[in-house]
Amino acid sequence: MTDQTATDTANTTGNWGRWGAEDERGALNLIDPAGVAAAAREVRTGRSYALGLPIQREGVPVFPHRGAPQRLTLSDHTDDMGMGREGGEDVRSYEDVLVLASHSITHMDALCHVQHQGKFYNGFDAATFRTRTGAERCGIEKIGAFTARAVLLDLPRYQGVERLELGYPITSADLAGCAAAQDVEMRSGDVLLVRTGYIDYWLAETRAGREPVYAQAGLTRDSVSFIRDHDIAAVGADNSAIEVMPFDNGVFLTVHIALLVQLGLPLMEHLWLTDLASGMAEAGTHACLLSVSPLPVTGATGSPINPVALV
Amino acid sequence: MTDQTATDTANTTGNWGRWGAEDERGALNLIDPAGVAAAAREVRTGRSYALGLPIQREGVPVFPHRGAPQRLTLSDHTDDMGMGREGGEDVRSYEDVLVLASHSITHMDALCHVQHQGKFYNGFDAATFRTRTGAERCGIEKIGAFTARAVLLDLPRYQGVERLELGYPITSADLAGCAAAQDVEMRSGDVLLVRTGYIDYWLAETRAGREPVYAQAGLTRDSVSFIRDHDIAAVGADNSAIEVMPFDNGVFLTVHIALLVQLGLPLMEHLWLTDLASGMAEAGTHACLLSVSPLPVTGATGSPINPVALV
Amino acid sequence: MTDQTATDTANTTGNWGRWGAEDERGALNLIDPAGVAAAAREVRTGRSYALGLPIQREGVPVFPHRGAPQRLTLSDHTDDMGMGREGGEDVRSYEDVLVLASHSITHMDALCHVQHQGKFYNGFDAATFRTRTGAERCGIEKIGAFTARAVLLDLPRYQGVERLELGYPITSADLAGCAAAQDVEMRSGDVLLVRTGYIDYWLAETRAGREPVYAQAGLTRDSVSFIRDHDIAAVGADNSAIEVMPFDNGVFLTVHIALLVQLGLPLMEHLWLTDLASGMAEAGTHACLLSVSPLPVTGATGSPINPVALV
Amino acid sequence: MTDQTATDTANTTGNWGRWGAEDERGALNLIDPAGVAAAAREVRTGRSYALGLPIQREGVPVFPHRGAPQRLTLSDHTDDMGMGREGGEDVRSYEDVLVLASHSITHMDALCHVQHQGKFYNGFDAATFRTRTGAERCGIEKIGAFTARAVLLDLPRYQGVERLELGYPITSADLAGCAAAQDVEMRSGDVLLVRTGYIDYWLAETRAGREPVYAQAGLTRDSVSFIRDHDIAAVGADNSAIEVMPFDNGVFLTVHIALLVQLGLPLMEHLWLTDLASGMAEAGTHACLLSVSPLPVTGATGSPINPVALV
Repeated sequence: MTDQTATDTANTTGNWGRWGAEDERGALNLIDPAGVAAAAREVRTGRSYALGLPIQREGVPVFPHRGAPQRLTLSDHTDDMGMGREGGEDVRSYEDVLVLASHSITHMDALCHVQHQGKFYNGFDAATFRTRTGAERCGIEKIGAFTARAVLLDLPRYQGVERLELGYPITSADLAGCAAAQDVEMRSGDVLLVRTGYIDYWLAETRAGREPVYAQAGLTRDSVSFIRDHDIAAVGADNSAIEVMPFDNGVFLTVHIALLVQLGLPLMEHLWLTDLASGMAEAGTHACLLSVSPLPVTGATGSPINPVALV
Repeated sequence: MTDQTATDTANTTGNWGRWGAEDERGALNLIDPAGVAAAAREVRTGRSYALGLPIQREGVPVFPHRGAPQRLTLSDHTDDMGMGREGGEDVRSYEDVLVLASHSITHMDALCHVQHQGKFYNGFDAATFRTRTGAERCGIEKIGAFTARAVLLDLPRYQGVERLELGYPITSADLAGCAAAQDVEMRSGDVLLVRTGYIDYWLAETRAGREPVYAQAGLTRDSVSFIRDHDIAAVGADNSAIEVMPFDNGVFLTVHIALLVQLGLPLMEHLWLTDLASGMAEAGTHACLLSVSPLPVTGATGSPINPVALV
Repeated sequence: MTDQTATDTANTTGNWGRWGAEDERGALNLIDPAGVAAAAREVRTGRSYALGLPIQREGVPVFPHRGAPQRLTLSDHTDDMGMGREGGEDVRSYEDVLVLASHSITHMDALCHVQHQGKFYNGFDAATFRTRTGAERCGIEKIGAFTARAVLLDLPRYQGVERLELGYPITSADLAGCAAAQDVEMRSGDVLLVRTGYIDYWLAETRAGREPVYAQAGLTRDSVSFIRDHDIAAVGADNSAIEVMPFDNGVFLTVHIALLVQLGLPLMEHLWLTDLASGMAEAGTHACLLSVSPLPVTGATGSPINPVALV
Repeated sequence: MTDQTATDTANTTGNWGRWGAEDERGALNLIDPAGVAAAAREVRTGRSYALGLPIQREGVPVFPHRGAPQRLTLSDHTDDMGMGREGGEDVRSYEDVLVLASHSITHMDALCHVQHQGKFYNGFDAATFRTRTGAERCGIEKIGAFTARAVLLDLPRYQGVERLELGYPITSADLAGCAAAQDVEMRSGDVLLVRTGYIDYWLAETRAGREPVYAQAGLTRDSVSFIRDHDIAAVGADNSAIEVMPFDNGVFLTVHIALLVQLGLPLMEHLWLTDLASGMAEAGTHACLLSVSPLPVTGATGSPINPVALV
């Protein structure tokens, strides 16, 4: 499916240094305010689509090593927080504590999520990450929250199937073909949203009490050139790890290395794109205004997210 | 400062039933897609402003009963997640677990955050909240993620001061006067952002090693009529609880009762509005496109947020 | 298997009031220092047996609603806690954060773990428990840590089987018969340890990749009279909930109501008794000196424990 | 106060190899069952003393980097766990989730808590500790739960003061002098409990709303010879880190290196020894039977404990 070899991963033809030696935002630098303003003017319906799956213990993809997310009640009606103040006896305040993996369910990978050969994006040394204080470089808090133009490539629709075959390796040709078929322009600084149909499959299997299989359609090393050539700012998909499973060429996290480490693109995984795809089809567009708000946890390697797409 | 009395809080002149007996989104129903599309066309610079303060143990407002937020490392370079797969020895993946209160630092209150006399918004019984499973009604996951037009009322700028006096009670007249002075139109379905300058004060005091005082400028019961009359969809502010401290008329959470319980407006607290205010002033506007993405934690009473404003 | 009916559970023939209206230690008051000193003098080998199963994510009984216990690294060699102090560069300190249910794996139920008809042990009102601050009455911290004489009744050995039949209902006659066969004296203030062989079965099934069945041998309502008549101070077993599953007479938590709520006995569940049983057999005794150290978490309803038996 | 120099810390005159190259229990190997049985026979009153301080957010020594311990309610009376089973409507079950540092308040340091020059006790390489899975070597679960003879040296009583001077450096001569004055025999395999009075000071200051000072009385490098010469199995104290603060000779964690890393003694910190000291004085003894039950968390570096002393 690709003629690149594992050794290519060491070939930093990426974006290191492109925005200076101290840069920690990577391809998000490609987001151009003027382009975003132009995209805003192209909003059609004004409808919002939330792209986050529910955060709960069951019924959503939870990886065992991350633990199931927990919502625990911190206070409820049994707690008199009014503490004798006037009106206090009539009022009760409810709060929770959340215990959840930064990479729970729908989430964003910060640029420090993966290192390759001891280096994070832009060549920052892996030793800049410390267990107690977390990432000194490229933590999720460096990303901020942002709004950008986004293009959704709906590959199952393009292929005329309900979902891509499990394990299907998405190439640059697939992405280019789909964009052409959708007649949507890719612009520098866009966020690319790739729909594979995998999460629909996962949810359907789970609801039916069946165990979803491991293999997933996803991006390959070959697809990286499409992303690089179009100066994409960030990539999101509806599968577990953006990339095809089993890994392309059998190389562990090979697409993460190319996109996240070398090109500096934050990645969004387990996005719920199906409602958005329908809404966009109905509105007759394939571009939207996408707002992404990772929690600015100092030093974190990622964050659960609930992006909102305005069509 | 206001002629309304504590007994008014029992007077449900609010929005219960306005969107049906089963409604759990409250005033967010006022967001009108056509209005949002119109607001999108008014975007000027295309610049994004993140409104969330950093989530960390120190240097940001942490209330003791909520505990300081914790980022704990789940995996780093010492963990061979590649587990012998090709390329695995060169790659390391970093993840965290987060332990944080739903109402940590910059956050949104869900409509189930407060009940009054045994009822949540729309009359849902307080017994619908259960400790283990959380809110059956009006949980944060019912809000979704949304984009709306937002207006920022910069009260310190209006008053010609650096920040409102600590404990200053904001009235409807203050809000109306500020909107008029800013020459900004309030539209139905808008999000109202109120800047008091409190958080600037809090951060400055904390950085200087001083304990910020308890009193805060904030909304009063009187200000509720401005919000109701303009059919505001949600309110956010840069103080701790939207409302003036000490509580208006000495009644515990009196503005929460009016806005959240009676009118069904989700509230956003500890927003960082200062950079946005500058950016808007520079762009010559007082309205923006605001995207808010609470984490869709099933049954939760609130969520940390990092809203993004597009100017 | 028993002629008691469900309505008996309302019949407080228990210990309420026996140690005064304010008592929160229940049957632990039966522990008599002189008796403990006597038991200490009967120690034979001086060998310690730990009765706690490992606390880890897998391979031990974890109930989904409680979540798998998590050990997260708080600091390690990447964190310079010496912070420039002399010798600091040569030293590293490793710490963890634990997230675990109070009733994880091997644990003790505090007397506030269960209420019946609105009352905890000794008639304390259920409203004394508050979500934020926990148990005002009968919290685990009221138990302290204690050493007592304990008797192990090894029922599988008594029946000449490897483990009791799954779902076997243990009666007073079984307990009395086993004690007689073992020729061990039951004394007032003893801790009763009941071995059913269930946990051996659970571990074997789990290791073999099979799902253990739900039914478990355990105590019945009938067995309560043995415990009451011998003035037992606390009961522990190697099954999940002390009592037989499915519940005796089909009544939910019926033995908990009798032992914990009515008699005020703290319960210990998922004990690892197999090594202790072997050690005691080898030493020719059926009594030991048992030390139990629940974590004194203020307001908690239970605690993971790792009791130590001295034979 | 001591003529040993910082360079001595590199001098492994310790116990590495003494119990074999694979040993992970260190000086606990010195506990001799026959000696423990003998100590059991010397029990006088049969009274238990719990040595753990309450585990709660306030009023006990919590170090900021560890976070305050949290007890969160997992289920209470609002949760129908009976789920329609007979009797279920009358019964409610209360559970918690605990979030707490392994080294919270009263705790035990596992042998992997500190490494020196890249090595844990017995020369295990620091790389055996991994962030996700924790300690492969010398984790707290290797300690088990144990009962041993313990001797309490009550230094304030020996000096005729209420508490040792803050920062007082305890030497071998102090320990030997105190043991002689108390006329208590030190035996091989004993646990040594050292009372300084520091925690009494800390609690009194905190209750009075004052900030306790940093300096603490504690063990010095000089005191190590007393511990080594008497073949002590474990050491506990009522201060924060066993050792004197500021560190002896200004060397970071110098006594931890000697005791924990070189000699392989687990350490117990923030013990509450005052009631025990009184009880022992009353009973006319200075030895007791001590049971210690760290939670067997696989891979953990320590555990909160609540040891129980039988006098």
